[in-house]
Amino acid sequence: MIIEKKSDTTILHRTAEDAPSWWKNWLVGSRLATAESSHQTINKKIALAVFASDALSSTAYATQEIMAILALAGTAALFYTFPITIAIVILLAIVILSYEQTVHAYPNGGGSFIVARDNLGNLAAQIAGASLLTDYILTVAVSISSGVAQITSAYPEMFEWRVPLSIVLIGFIMLVNLRGVKESGSIFAVPSYFFLVMMSFTIIVAMVRYFSGTLGTVPNPPALELIHTAQVITPFLILHAFASGTTAMTGIEAVSDGIQAFQQPRSRNAGITLLWMGFILSTLFLGISFLAVQIGAIPSEGETVISQIARTAYNGQGWLYLITLASTTAILIMATNTAFADFPRLSSWLAIDGFLPRQLNYRGSRLVFSRGIVGLAILASLLVTYFQASVTKLIPLYAIGVFLSFTLSQGGMAYRWWKIGHLSPNEERQERGSMLRYEAGWQYKMVINGFGSFCTAIVTLVFAYTKFWDGAWVVLLLIPALVSVFSYIYRHYQNLRGRLSLKDYTKPRRITRRRVIVAVAGVHRGTIEALNYAQSLSDDVTGVHVSIDPVETEKVQHTWEEWSDGTRLVILESPHRLLYEPLLAYIKDVLAVRQPNETITIIVPQFVPKRWWDNLLHHQTALRLRWNLLSEPGIVVTDVPYQV
Amino acid sequence: MIIEKKSDTTILHRTAEDAPSWWKNWLVGSRLATAESSHQTINKKIALAVFASDALSSTAYATQEIMAILALAGTAALFYTFPITIAIVILLAIVILSYEQTVHAYPNGGGSFIVARDNLGNLAAQIAGASLLTDYILTVAVSISSGVAQITSAYPEMFEWRVPLSIVLIGFIMLVNLRGVKESGSIFAVPSYFFLVMMSFTIIVAMVRYFSGTLGTVPNPPALELIHTAQVITPFLILHAFASGTTAMTGIEAVSDGIQAFQQPRSRNAGITLLWMGFILSTLFLGISFLAVQIGAIPSEGETVISQIARTAYNGQGWLYLITLASTTAILIMATNTAFADFPRLSSWLAIDGFLPRQLNYRGSRLVFSRGIVGLAILASLLVTYFQASVTKLIPLYAIGVFLSFTLSQGGMAYRWWKIGHLSPNEERQERGSMLRYEAGWQYKMVINGFGSFCTAIVTLVFAYTKFWDGAWVVLLLIPALVSVFSYIYRHYQNLRGRLSLKDYTKPRRITRRRVIVAVAGVHRGTIEALNYAQSLSDDVTGVHVSIDPVETEKVQHTWEEWSDGTRLVILESPHRLLYEPLLAYIKDVLAVRQPNETITIIVPQFVPKRWWDNLLHHQTALRLRWNLLSEPGIVVTDVPYQV
Repeated sequence: MIIEKKSDTTILHRTAEDAPSWWKNWLVGSRLATAESSHQTINKKIALAVFASDALSSTAYATQEIMAILALAGTAALFYTFPITIAIVILLAIVILSYEQTVHAYPNGGGSFIVARDNLGNLAAQIAGASLLTDYILTVAVSISSGVAQITSAYPEMFEWRVPLSIVLIGFIMLVNLRGVKESGSIFAVPSYFFLVMMSFTIIVAMVRYFSGTLGTVPNPPALELIHTAQVITPFLILHAFASGTTAMTGIEAVSDGIQAFQQPRSRNAGITLLWMGFILSTLFLGISFLAVQIGAIPSEGETVISQIARTAYNGQGWLYLITLASTTAILIMATNTAFADFPRLSSWLAIDGFLPRQLNYRGSRLVFSRGIVGLAILASLLVTYFQASVTKLIPLYAIGVFLSFTLSQGGMAYRWWKIGHLSPNEERQERGSMLRYEAGWQYKMVINGFGSFCTAIVTLVFAYTKFWDGAWVVLLLIPALVSVFSYIYRHYQNLRGRLSLKDYTKPRRITRRRVIVAVAGVHRGTIEALNYAQSLSDDVTGVHVSIDPVETEKVQHTWEEWSDGTRLVILESPHRLLYEPLLAYIKDVLAVRQPNETITIIVPQFVPKRWWDNLLHHQTALRLRWNLLSEPGIVVTDVPYQV
Repeated sequence: MIIEKKSDTTILHRTAEDAPSWWKNWLVGSRLATAESSHQTINKKIALAVFASDALSSTAYATQEIMAILALAGTAALFYTFPITIAIVILLAIVILSYEQTVHAYPNGGGSFIVARDNLGNLAAQIAGASLLTDYILTVAVSISSGVAQITSAYPEMFEWRVPLSIVLIGFIMLVNLRGVKESGSIFAVPSYFFLVMMSFTIIVAMVRYFSGTLGTVPNPPALELIHTAQVITPFLILHAFASGTTAMTGIEAVSDGIQAFQQPRSRNAGITLLWMGFILSTLFLGISFLAVQIGAIPSEGETVISQIARTAYNGQGWLYLITLASTTAILIMATNTAFADFPRLSSWLAIDGFLPRQLNYRGSRLVFSRGIVGLAILASLLVTYFQASVTKLIPLYAIGVFLSFTLSQGGMAYRWWKIGHLSPNEERQERGSMLRYEAGWQYKMVINGFGSFCTAIVTLVFAYTKFWDGAWVVLLLIPALVSVFSYIYRHYQNLRGRLSLKDYTKPRRITRRRVIVAVAGVHRGTIEALNYAQSLSDDVTGVHVSIDPVETEKVQHTWEEWSDGTRLVILESPHRLLYEPLLAYIKDVLAVRQPNETITIIVPQFVPKRWWDNLLHHQTALRLRWNLLSEPGIVVTDVPYQV
């Protein structure tokens, strides 16, 4: 204990903390001190696993979702799957290059929220924040649902257990994340590389067999689940399929969000990881789409396209098939980790800026933002339950938020380059969160970011247009709704800060009169304890009893006289049997004659039963009085507990 | 205001009450004073309408439910409907005669609960109470569902709205009952007599046409909803149908429950009402069952038997048909009134005896037990929603509780006569609630009550046996569960009374030391107000700040020095960023050295935002501390509100 003595104020520093309960320790690990924070960084190989799992895992469903739309026009339309995939890969390359620039410009973390806020202002930041929060929840719901779909492809008898299974998996990821980022990193490295190896191997085997002419088509493919009126192939249908396929790009912003978790030199390491991720993602996506068309795979809720490719490549459901599916399930489940890392971090940034409740910036005992993690798990579980763990039903809601935030982030970067280009060569300027410094070649960089932003803006519009009635409207309403909530909270905190400020505040008058009122329902041990406390606070104590039953009142009067040492008792007649209203009316009468230097303390005896639910058996007078008197200045409601 | 002065205690009597809000006045009527209570009685004609509506209305579904069971063995089995009805009417006559004796023995209200408690003890009373509470809820659910079924018989397009319609109707009855018993009496007299007239008229028309040979059979009867494997006629099936038909007898106990609402001479008026009710009920039930078989009515969810009889009697769906159905709907809806009168009354009796929470004995501003009324409406709405307003699905749960309570009540009466028979001729004895006085002819009365009890006991067993798997098991589990809850609550109150008693209690030592701790999250206007209040309570004030962020702590220290007039500040270092745990640990250290004549008051500054939901944006420190410190004696947690 350190004692400081400054002027006439004594300040004691003291370290005091209870040990956490053993079960909490076992579940989420021992507490980490704030000072241990900077050690929680990861190297490039683990970072690739942690930050790329979301992006890579989307290859498990992106091809299938393209085909599910094309199949509306019959199996012939499935031919367009591969050209659409190529278009998406080109878009991916543009966005990856654009983000590589962001990673260098924002070495401390350049998520869409921060880039939009620093360069485009509060409204853009709020839109980006709302879009991303929505999409993180959907990432968890879609990835888990797709992971469970892989399991039910191999074991169809598990199909009816898909929802509870999904929720158990979400709970597992939640616990892993509550332990903190580094440990979750090590856990996630294994499944990511496992998937990479198994999927590459499957694609190579299938390719070799395809070019040697021994691959053939899917044996016993699932039935095509056709809507009754088959559609014709229209530009709308192609755009719709393209929009569904862009889900392959979800997750690539994870690297720029999480730069702080990289080892030094952060930006360089993050940039290299990003390029690697783009390369691997493109290769897998192209391979899967190519093979899916060649083997005549059919999109189905019952069996995933990955399962169809694997059993065609390996000639049936042997152990290689099972391992491939297991690795796909594993990466899909682990993919949610990205969302679990980013959602709480983004929430905390929003909380710091005053757009979300302060509590979200409170780090748990393991240095992670525990409340955000738990909140994400609950919201994703609700979504999975509502949509019955169907990827195809979730997809129309998904990705629109991601593309909106891509657009804002890259737009912000482009504007930033324009500002940098208009600085004089050695000028530096601090603008909001970041430092602007002249750089040669800004025109070139502005074009890359600007073109990326333009492309993703187009995709966002395509998405909104083609998927509006399938479910995108929900998200298009939700984002402005969230922005309104952010603004409301922001105004609340701003307003409060002003009203609580000590600037121009004069200290209130010293309180010299204390009036104490004790609520007396009956005279028993708890009442006497409360009266004793009341008498210690003031000499001006009044007991107040609301009389409903004259017999009861007679008894109260009698016992009060015996035990109260002459304290005044007011009996409030309640001809209409009301309990609280007469008491409130009396208190308000007393308040009406309160002087500025006077406080009124209402004391309510409250017995504390051994079990909390026993409270339901008693009137909660203190709660009710406090609630009704909250807006009255100069009054304090205190319940004096009496342990039964 | 009256001032009394006894010894050294001043007692003030005072009448203080706020006016109720205008909308509450408009919805439930102006407040009634307790003194107005005795005026709330009703004459025989209104009493018949109020207390018989439940019993009479059951004729609207009893016949149909007999037929629904018999139809499992094909339309030929429907022949047994009338013989079964005769058997039920005989049973009814026995029970009515038995209850007529109860009405005279208990002029202040002789519900099954009271009769069982006075004569058979607490356990029987609890079983009777549990059975009746369960059945009142089911009465509301069944009656409303059947009423809505009459509407959907006439207007099949309303079928899909049956659940919301039911809930709206329950809400309406709830409001009427919140206004108080007399007004609801007048409202309910009209529909009860309306039903009586219309149903009698329909039966007479049909009978005249039947005996003149012009009645014929139902045109276009609904299809028989057969279970695939048709059953054969077995004694089990007949017993099962009989058990379903006994629902006709539900509601006859209402008169003995509600004797206090009758005008003087209460017992005589109630007895006459009871006999009239039995006569009318038997006549209607026999008439409906006879006609239903003769016209070849088919039990169906789509069209009620009443609807089939009415459109056969009136040759189609003309205005007489519609008026008959309207009157049936009206009495069914109004029938729930009996449950709404009895459920809250029974709850209050259970509360007085300490089997249910005290709050249920709190009368509302209109002299009715408002909480019981609202509770019943909520529970019945949940049942209706769960069973989709299907009478046939609800029936297996229904009536078993009624028959169990019939058995206990009449058994109690029989035992009472036995005790009376063993008194000496002029002896009087007070036993529990009632006075025993020798009566000639007690043997005769004992036989009537005993035989009634025996018959209803048999029916209860038949019910439990034939309907066990259809749903009766739910009730057979629920009743013991409720009895356990009653016992738990009873023990809690008994226990508490002992522990709060002032017998052998010595007054606690006068408090001479007061220590005050102010929780300081940040130093702002609210903190200063709280500090000001703290300083008024004691000279021993300590501010406590939990330090998570050193920069923030520096600021708190600085501002504290400036504003605190030299009050001590303790800084608790929290290396693991915990907020509450260090504070709690500190408080427990302080408590460890507390002296018996010392209290510790924890003061938490709490700002009161304008809108209650803004509280979600702030840590609820006081709540959390109070919760954690409830079990510690000598400590009081107070939040000092600061109005923003």
